[in-house]
Amino acid sequence: MGGAKGGSDFDPVGKSDAEIMRFCQAFMLELWQCIGPDQDIPAGDVGVGGREIGFLYGMYKKLAREYNTGVLTGKGGTWGGSILRPEATGFGALYFTQHLLDKAGKTIEGKKVALSGFGNVAWGAATKATQLGAKVVAISGPDGVCHIPDGITKEMIDYMLVMRASNRNMVEDMATKFPGKAIFTPGKKAWSIPCDIALPCAFQNELSEDDAKELKANGCWCCCEVSNMGCQPGAIHFFQHNGILFAPGKAVNAGGVATSGLEMTQNAEHISWSGEEVDAKLHFIMKSIHEQCVKFGTQPDGTIDYVKGANIAGFMKVATAMLEQGII
Amino acid sequence: MGGAKGGSDFDPVGKSDAEIMRFCQAFMLELWQCIGPDQDIPAGDVGVGGREIGFLYGMYKKLAREYNTGVLTGKGGTWGGSILRPEATGFGALYFTQHLLDKAGKTIEGKKVALSGFGNVAWGAATKATQLGAKVVAISGPDGVCHIPDGITKEMIDYMLVMRASNRNMVEDMATKFPGKAIFTPGKKAWSIPCDIALPCAFQNELSEDDAKELKANGCWCCCEVSNMGCQPGAIHFFQHNGILFAPGKAVNAGGVATSGLEMTQNAEHISWSGEEVDAKLHFIMKSIHEQCVKFGTQPDGTIDYVKGANIAGFMKVATAMLEQGII
Amino acid sequence: MGGAKGGSDFDPVGKSDAEIMRFCQAFMLELWQCIGPDQDIPAGDVGVGGREIGFLYGMYKKLAREYNTGVLTGKGGTWGGSILRPEATGFGALYFTQHLLDKAGKTIEGKKVALSGFGNVAWGAATKATQLGAKVVAISGPDGVCHIPDGITKEMIDYMLVMRASNRNMVEDMATKFPGKAIFTPGKKAWSIPCDIALPCAFQNELSEDDAKELKANGCWCCCEVSNMGCQPGAIHFFQHNGILFAPGKAVNAGGVATSGLEMTQNAEHISWSGEEVDAKLHFIMKSIHEQCVKFGTQPDGTIDYVKGANIAGFMKVATAMLEQGII
Amino acid sequence: MGGAKGGSDFDPVGKSDAEIMRFCQAFMLELWQCIGPDQDIPAGDVGVGGREIGFLYGMYKKLAREYNTGVLTGKGGTWGGSILRPEATGFGALYFTQHLLDKAGKTIEGKKVALSGFGNVAWGAATKATQLGAKVVAISGPDGVCHIPDGITKEMIDYMLVMRASNRNMVEDMATKFPGKAIFTPGKKAWSIPCDIALPCAFQNELSEDDAKELKANGCWCCCEVSNMGCQPGAIHFFQHNGILFAPGKAVNAGGVATSGLEMTQNAEHISWSGEEVDAKLHFIMKSIHEQCVKFGTQPDGTIDYVKGANIAGFMKVATAMLEQGII
Amino acid sequence: MGGAKGGSDFDPVGKSDAEIMRFCQAFMLELWQCIGPDQDIPAGDVGVGGREIGFLYGMYKKLAREYNTGVLTGKGGTWGGSILRPEATGFGALYFTQHLLDKAGKTIEGKKVALSGFGNVAWGAATKATQLGAKVVAISGPDGVCHIPDGITKEMIDYMLVMRASNRNMVEDMATKFPGKAIFTPGKKAWSIPCDIALPCAFQNELSEDDAKELKANGCWCCCEVSNMGCQPGAIHFFQHNGILFAPGKAVNAGGVATSGLEMTQNAEHISWSGEEVDAKLHFIMKSIHEQCVKFGTQPDGTIDYVKGANIAGFMKVATAMLEQGII
Amino acid sequence: MGGAKGGSDFDPVGKSDAEIMRFCQAFMLELWQCIGPDQDIPAGDVGVGGREIGFLYGMYKKLAREYNTGVLTGKGGTWGGSILRPEATGFGALYFTQHLLDKAGKTIEGKKVALSGFGNVAWGAATKATQLGAKVVAISGPDGVCHIPDGITKEMIDYMLVMRASNRNMVEDMATKFPGKAIFTPGKKAWSIPCDIALPCAFQNELSEDDAKELKANGCWCCCEVSNMGCQPGAIHFFQHNGILFAPGKAVNAGGVATSGLEMTQNAEHISWSGEEVDAKLHFIMKSIHEQCVKFGTQPDGTIDYVKGANIAGFMKVATAMLEQGII
Repeated sequence: MGGAKGGSDFDPVGKSDAEIMRFCQAFMLELWQCIGPDQDIPAGDVGVGGREIGFLYGMYKKLAREYNTGVLTGKGGTWGGSILRPEATGFGALYFTQHLLDKAGKTIEGKKVALSGFGNVAWGAATKATQLGAKVVAISGPDGVCHIPDGITKEMIDYMLVMRASNRNMVEDMATKFPGKAIFTPGKKAWSIPCDIALPCAFQNELSEDDAKELKANGCWCCCEVSNMGCQPGAIHFFQHNGILFAPGKAVNAGGVATSGLEMTQNAEHISWSGEEVDAKLHFIMKSIHEQCVKFGTQPDGTIDYVKGANIAGFMKVATAMLEQGII
Repeated sequence: MGGAKGGSDFDPVGKSDAEIMRFCQAFMLELWQCIGPDQDIPAGDVGVGGREIGFLYGMYKKLAREYNTGVLTGKGGTWGGSILRPEATGFGALYFTQHLLDKAGKTIEGKKVALSGFGNVAWGAATKATQLGAKVVAISGPDGVCHIPDGITKEMIDYMLVMRASNRNMVEDMATKFPGKAIFTPGKKAWSIPCDIALPCAFQNELSEDDAKELKANGCWCCCEVSNMGCQPGAIHFFQHNGILFAPGKAVNAGGVATSGLEMTQNAEHISWSGEEVDAKLHFIMKSIHEQCVKFGTQPDGTIDYVKGANIAGFMKVATAMLEQGII
Repeated sequence: MGGAKGGSDFDPVGKSDAEIMRFCQAFMLELWQCIGPDQDIPAGDVGVGGREIGFLYGMYKKLAREYNTGVLTGKGGTWGGSILRPEATGFGALYFTQHLLDKAGKTIEGKKVALSGFGNVAWGAATKATQLGAKVVAISGPDGVCHIPDGITKEMIDYMLVMRASNRNMVEDMATKFPGKAIFTPGKKAWSIPCDIALPCAFQNELSEDDAKELKANGCWCCCEVSNMGCQPGAIHFFQHNGILFAPGKAVNAGGVATSGLEMTQNAEHISWSGEEVDAKLHFIMKSIHEQCVKFGTQPDGTIDYVKGANIAGFMKVATAMLEQGII
Repeated sequence: MGGAKGGSDFDPVGKSDAEIMRFCQAFMLELWQCIGPDQDIPAGDVGVGGREIGFLYGMYKKLAREYNTGVLTGKGGTWGGSILRPEATGFGALYFTQHLLDKAGKTIEGKKVALSGFGNVAWGAATKATQLGAKVVAISGPDGVCHIPDGITKEMIDYMLVMRASNRNMVEDMATKFPGKAIFTPGKKAWSIPCDIALPCAFQNELSEDDAKELKANGCWCCCEVSNMGCQPGAIHFFQHNGILFAPGKAVNAGGVATSGLEMTQNAEHISWSGEEVDAKLHFIMKSIHEQCVKFGTQPDGTIDYVKGANIAGFMKVATAMLEQGII
Repeated sequence: MGGAKGGSDFDPVGKSDAEIMRFCQAFMLELWQCIGPDQDIPAGDVGVGGREIGFLYGMYKKLAREYNTGVLTGKGGTWGGSILRPEATGFGALYFTQHLLDKAGKTIEGKKVALSGFGNVAWGAATKATQLGAKVVAISGPDGVCHIPDGITKEMIDYMLVMRASNRNMVEDMATKFPGKAIFTPGKKAWSIPCDIALPCAFQNELSEDDAKELKANGCWCCCEVSNMGCQPGAIHFFQHNGILFAPGKAVNAGGVATSGLEMTQNAEHISWSGEEVDAKLHFIMKSIHEQCVKFGTQPDGTIDYVKGANIAGFMKVATAMLEQGII
Repeated sequence: MGGAKGGSDFDPVGKSDAEIMRFCQAFMLELWQCIGPDQDIPAGDVGVGGREIGFLYGMYKKLAREYNTGVLTGKGGTWGGSILRPEATGFGALYFTQHLLDKAGKTIEGKKVALSGFGNVAWGAATKATQLGAKVVAISGPDGVCHIPDGITKEMIDYMLVMRASNRNMVEDMATKFPGKAIFTPGKKAWSIPCDIALPCAFQNELSEDDAKELKANGCWCCCEVSNMGCQPGAIHFFQHNGILFAPGKAVNAGGVATSGLEMTQNAEHISWSGEEVDAKLHFIMKSIHEQCVKFGTQPDGTIDYVKGANIAGFMKVATAMLEQGII
């Protein structure tokens, strides 16, 4: 909790809910006049989840005497939070992938997808990939990988939520629950399963250069990084020099932050959108991000360097705004 | 005029427009710093109609020096008011009814509807019911009921506006205008006309237990309360214990307040919506309210207690927000 | 730069970008507390383009410490500006024309359109007219007119942008670029080309009574004024007394200001719309303006006086709001 | 704690300092935006002493982020409180008495003064009376009266503080401490001791008509009411109709509130005054109040009705300000 | 009423008090957010007296919800006005004269003073001149002059108030009231009476070059201009070139505005000063103004040019503050 | 320039006035909303003199649109600065010394005073010491010491200003100007001159233990530290254990900061005080500080440990206010 304006040295480990609440209230008492829906908008992050955002907003409302829900994002669903937030990163990543494939003259339908993890992001990615017609053939966990030869089913996707809620953190449970359909191999990564498209959805550096080589050897021809910096530099280098379509997390996983932005929009409008509306707007945003990558990443030979495209697009947006608004 | 923050003892009866105006201006001079589009938003109510809201807003604008139309609802159509406000309660009630029927495995098409009154709410309900394919076979007034065997027509619905504007307050006029098509019976209620669906649209306690029994005896199997507490407790008890689908006004007539909320949204967006947009959003809201009733009112036997569902849903929304936002 | 609140005597001619910037910053230092997204919203105008709006907004943001982009319109596309702004006036004019024709029982498809100029407005008009199925047979410049017998093509419309960017200000270039397809006649106006519909898109008083007579003689039966007061009073009088459909700029060209309003809405919502969304909302607004003209301009004989209709509609909107909000 | 804006039902009895503190903080969190140094200024009263004012101010400072000490009075001496506050009421009463005597052609020097109580007010009155040359011959308590034939001494006055701090609430202690000099009589009031001037300094209704008669019988010719409504109506009537100079508490005890006003002035000036400065300003204020009483209370026969004078002066001040400032 | 920020075209002539009040309230409703005790502070002037200041302040207080009396000067005595305001200009003029004489090695005691007018300013000047030991030998009116050979008395000074209140505007009344002591000569100015010191206290241009010559011929050796530009340029030139001490109104009559400043100080301090305190501070200010005139007006020959001194001192104060605070 | 809220890395060395001005303006543009007359009040310090305060205030006034001079101290004399600021530290130190001597049963009259430096502080100290009847027998500079056996004269004190303005930084100039009266000894400190009272007025650590011993050997019996930590710990230890009266700079030199506080008071009051008023208030403050030192520093043997007294008094003031205002 904290950030550029200072933060605190409060350690929430071992504190009761009431202690957390009092800390959040004291923190907001210091912070409240520095934030606002058109100023700075804190959001949840590591150690600041729904509970903390709730306590912070309750105190903010008391102090500011205004129901400015847009001052914080990550709020509860009944008081200004976004309905599609858990799925946002995964859904957005698949929309990006869809446009990347389309640009490359391919479609996602029928393609085999290997993804890592089985948490929030993997769950959203599996859901949307399946919706779009792909076949998710692998999910993984710290204990190993589950191969799902016929593609993940609705029941399996729902069971991912049960697995996560159990706190056991074992992907083997999927194989136990769906014997024959999901085959567990301990100690292996998702990248060992033959696939068309690899989607790292778990954690930083989860896909090494060796993994990249194994993927290629097994027929993979596309990798969209969903986790933050999930691919090691060597892996990215290998993808880019071996004809494998690659897009960086900076672009692919922007759906999470974008949905926070949509939460702010709903708050500004004093309205809640249906899941369909959030989804459509998320799709539009991911499509625009893809277009920016294409605009700035298209190479002389017509191929697209998504890493370069995403970097330049981001830089240009900030730089243009700064230049246009003058030096003060 | 007044409310929790105090109010006044000004009696508008017999006052000129200029006196009403000066009172509204003086009242707002006291009130203006306590209200705001993200704070408290007064709306019209008994004795506070479009005229008063206009005078109040004019003074607010002068004092606050901002064109914050969202600070009051019930505004005139050319300066921030909602285009569908008169129809809102009636339209919303029918959307709720439609979802209730759908949930019960039925449709509204072709069903006979008896509704009470011929004012604003009844007019909106008749309009939307007819649009959705139902046959409105009864409207009523203080003088009696009009039976309309073939269902109300567009011309008749338009004539309801004329009747209301005449201030005669006699439903018999409909029979006079449309002889043969509308048959007037003096001293009877709408509930005496055989129907599938009863919609009390007039005033509190307008439907007694005896009325409920008469409805059932005549084949009625559904009653959606549109007026505020239109059904007497005995009537509700009878409905609930005799297999008649019943939904309380708390849920059914929420379309009016919801449209005030949509007016605030349009004001926050600095935009006016078309009637279609307002209607679609109203429908979405009523659908969500119905879903909440189902979520909290579904009984072990699979039936839905809409009274229980509406009460619990309302309580849970407030209670959850309070708990999540902490104790201060 | 300036207006009702005072303005300045700074002459930007011959000033460097840095001098312009410092002037804009000093100007905003005086102005900032008098403007706001719900108060007064300056927009670009003669001598105040994107560069100036950028410098003004940069200083405003610094002073107000809020990212209230809605405080100015005409912003850059990456920091709150509207995506369809250049096309707005032309697109809006054609939507209005379309509704006018529809009301008159005609369609725009296949009709020959002569329009003056080849700048921003003419380009938008030509684009949308072509999209709607009309055949743009003339564009013009200070040097003469280009007759395009088979109707303007996508390539020609794109070339209009090149011509404008060249700063040569010569419409003859179109004929040079597309020999055979575009025929240049020096010293003549667009109104010399036979057409169904005339769209003055250039400057004030560009269409005289004689031009009106020539248009009629050549078969023209409709003129929608796009430029501000593009038709001389004699021309309007001739149109109105010789059976030619005429609509004034006050209504026809409102799409520009309306799109500034939509920019404010996007800013209030903290969101950017796609071009399609802006276009749809622009269409809705132009349709509403047309309806207002019809409502107030329909003559006893059923014909519509759009001049009268636009004037009365504008007056009524302001007058109604003033009366309803009281005298203070 | 509370007042016109609402207050609370918190009962401080039996609460710990920390509980009192948290209540004060919660109370101020509600109140802070309604008070201010030029707006409403709460002060201590029954149940709200220095401890509560400290907690309230600490929270106010935190919330308002300004060191506006003038927002509350009764503050601690090191952070904006007034140095002469405990003595203020008593000192002011004696200044008033001095001017009353002067107006009547008399002096206070050498006069015998009987005063009731031995608390804060009595202590201040005894101190100043002695300073001005009077001889304080009686103080009293719930247990009886102490006659001090030779006049109270500096040591005795200091001992009043000790007695009060002991919480024994027995005036007999003075006689025990100063045998021979102070003679205790149980069950009697101060009004039983022969004196020139009677100063009721204890509580409401402490001086009855019988007391008034006893005073007169013993030679008393002046009574200045220091406690709030210390004299019963019958006593006042007797004084006024038997040639005894009488001034009401409304005027006589205004020094307490006036010193709160001086605390506000010191806060507004960001400065602390010496005791001498506070005393001089207090004297000036009491002199002005006396002059107002004379101005409005002088009778046709030249005598002064201080009750009438104080009432009319207070009314005129408010009424004049209201009339001069217009009706709104 | 009005000034640099705009003003109005309201003509108060013939309006009732209620109309004046409503105008003042409407005017303040526009003005209130542009003024403040540290911002702009309107004061009374021609056509804006105590009545108007009262109505303006009443409305300001209502709008701003703060008791910021310092926002206007010229308030009523019971709600923030200054106690010595009527006397301020006359008193200040005499303090300046006293210091001017002292600097010239002379005293005011026993000197004969001729002053013009018998209004507010003349009354203050006569009062203070007499207090300081001078002998006021002439007052005047539109009807002529009163010679008072033995000097004006306390009774005569008080009678000036009666004369002014009578609205007769005739100085002859003084001679009628005090026969023998005050000798009236019709049609003559005060400058015809032999004196040491001439004090023009009436109106602009009231003392011509011929008057100046007559004064000198009669022994006058000093003229302090109290009225605004009371001396014609020729008179000033004559004084300065004929060894007559002269000081301009710019310096001499500054006591009026200075006392408005002292009213602001009392308001900022939340306190009322006694007349003595106001007088002492006024004296200090006039002494400082005199010192500034000496500092900047001392000539190489040691004499003091008060016209030059006052002009330079005023310019330097503004110029120094501007330079020190930088160019923005 | 900077401090707790951040500061900057701007190096004013070698910058033009215009560059300094622009830096100050940019700095204030960031700072202005964090400061205020009741909030944080920056003052001049090393590298921030009158020039910088002027530029900062000019920008503040522009931004805040209020003439809140109290927001900064160290302002120019014509726009809110204090008249006695240069002398403040020296005057205050002598008032403290006077009270210290009085408490010790001594007087300052006729005592020989040795002081170090000849700058601002030394000049103020010499002025006031002489006014109070002491004989200043030594001043010093980096080049050595001037012995002035008969005590410094008014002419010599005035010449200190000339010496400082010359920027030569040589105390020998005094001896050159006043031969015979001031005797220069190169390379020696003021502490080598026999005296009763030593006043270090120059810089940190300027008085060593050896100096202390030399002072005692020469008869010195009192040392009041005027410079910030002018005495080395060994010197203080020697003084305290050898019967020499010693007071620390923390208390002795508080007059500088106190006069900044008085500048704030004058600003809050919208008034300028005469030098006499500032001096009297400064004296009152120094007297109070001395009393606090006595209160907390009196030892069981009756002697006063001013180091202990000053430390405890400072701590108690802050601690008491914190405790009384509660824990938040």
